[in-house]
Amino acid sequence: MRPLVALDWGTSSLRVALLDEAGGVVEEQSLPRGILTVAAGDFPQVFEKATARWQAVPDALFLLGGMVGSRQGWQEAPYCPCPAGFADIAAALAWVEPGRIAIVPGLTCQQGGVPDVMRGEEAQVYGALDLLGIADGLFVLPGTHSKWVRVAGRRIESFSTFMTGEFYGLLRQHSILSRTMPADDGALDEHAFERGVRHAVQAGNLLHAAFSARTLSLFGALPPPALPSYLSGLVIGEELRSQHLHRLADPIVIVGAAALTQRYELALRLLGIPARRLGPEATWRGLGAIARTLEDTA
Amino acid sequence: MRPLVALDWGTSSLRVALLDEAGGVVEEQSLPRGILTVAAGDFPQVFEKATARWQAVPDALFLLGGMVGSRQGWQEAPYCPCPAGFADIAAALAWVEPGRIAIVPGLTCQQGGVPDVMRGEEAQVYGALDLLGIADGLFVLPGTHSKWVRVAGRRIESFSTFMTGEFYGLLRQHSILSRTMPADDGALDEHAFERGVRHAVQAGNLLHAAFSARTLSLFGALPPPALPSYLSGLVIGEELRSQHLHRLADPIVIVGAAALTQRYELALRLLGIPARRLGPEATWRGLGAIARTLEDTA
Repeated sequence: MRPLVALDWGTSSLRVALLDEAGGVVEEQSLPRGILTVAAGDFPQVFEKATARWQAVPDALFLLGGMVGSRQGWQEAPYCPCPAGFADIAAALAWVEPGRIAIVPGLTCQQGGVPDVMRGEEAQVYGALDLLGIADGLFVLPGTHSKWVRVAGRRIESFSTFMTGEFYGLLRQHSILSRTMPADDGALDEHAFERGVRHAVQAGNLLHAAFSARTLSLFGALPPPALPSYLSGLVIGEELRSQHLHRLADPIVIVGAAALTQRYELALRLLGIPARRLGPEATWRGLGAIARTLEDTA
Repeated sequence: MRPLVALDWGTSSLRVALLDEAGGVVEEQSLPRGILTVAAGDFPQVFEKATARWQAVPDALFLLGGMVGSRQGWQEAPYCPCPAGFADIAAALAWVEPGRIAIVPGLTCQQGGVPDVMRGEEAQVYGALDLLGIADGLFVLPGTHSKWVRVAGRRIESFSTFMTGEFYGLLRQHSILSRTMPADDGALDEHAFERGVRHAVQAGNLLHAAFSARTLSLFGALPPPALPSYLSGLVIGEELRSQHLHRLADPIVIVGAAALTQRYELALRLLGIPARRLGPEATWRGLGAIARTLEDTA
């Protein structure tokens, strides 16, 4: 297999890795050059700088995933429709430089006439399939915009976005609830977090459940340092509420940074739903698997 | 009956009215002196200024409703527990000056161990009961924090708060959705509004439904000028989704400013739910009814 330099180029950060044939990381570095910091014509220069130490690797393939393929990125890689597997993605790469530099397209699907989109998370899901050696399952990728992804036969069938992290930030920073919150989130208060999860699931509507963070505080039933954990439980509980999780046969796979995936595992355990966790290494594994598929189908 | 000067003293505004015996407005004025603009010790002065023209009315009663009775107001009027009717409220007034100046307390109720609160809306509900000559019903008071209020036998049995207006503002001003929004909301686009209501009800979760404002815009399926109306439909639809409205015998009573109550009437009609609307005059009528009850029970 050709040497692979993989780039995970998102909105706020840029990570680069040289991968071995199995998709393992040989060397890795990250730069504070998310696409929001890059002016329209400057992507080639930032790319050259970020990959300078590997530009001389003979016959290297540079594979880029994430928001770099959006309209605000280097070059738009049109969304690939679901269902989409490894071969579909490999066939839909947007080549910046033919045979050498390619951008992985995001995915789109339709539900009830309304489109949904992802960019970057598809590589994590493919990587999770590869790491776990499974072909089917339900995956959650928590974040600013959490993705719930259904996979069947190693193809992403459909997915749904939940603006959970963003709602947390809005309520935490800009709402009336922020007035009684401490300056820092502090460590997770598991009891307050679980109380939030339970209340959101029972209330069935975040517009209503969120107000409890104010009234519990008003009546002294929740101390200010516990409020960020409680609010985190409310929004994550609200996300889990509508996933119909009791119908599942296999554990849910949670993919992402430990600080967040631990919260989701905790909330799922509270609801009696088995789950397993994977870290951000799934991104590299997924980009490696796409590169392998590209060679196999070439 | 004694002459009544009623004050609707909220967070951002102060309205004062001289009422006749039937609770009708003889004279009215409003000042930009919501409680947020008044320093802790300045409430007496602002009150004197706001009521100067009526200070000489012989034997007048001054009745104040709204956030003026909160901890951040003139004097805290502890919440009155539900169920609460006219006589309960009249007995729980907080007297600033015995026999002359009184603050109407807010209400509190408990649901599943979580408290809820209102301040000011109780007067609107009592006024609506008086105006319509009814004793039972479901009332909605749309706003930053919408209140859904159940009344039986002319007493407020229970209520629930929905942070609908605040969520609209957060998403409109501070979220990723704001990036594709026009500077001004413009006139209501009824078609986009109704589309938002329908999508929220069908999606069953605002964390997910809200993302459609982004994707529909991304795919050119919703023009930017229609986005504020669509988002308004999403949040109001989400609020209506969990009210179990099909069980109702009588029309819902919507109380508030026309711009908002019209939207709720439109959304309810779309869902096949009959409703009737009342304007902000319900506040004066409610304060008048509380004053009458006070005299009757004195």
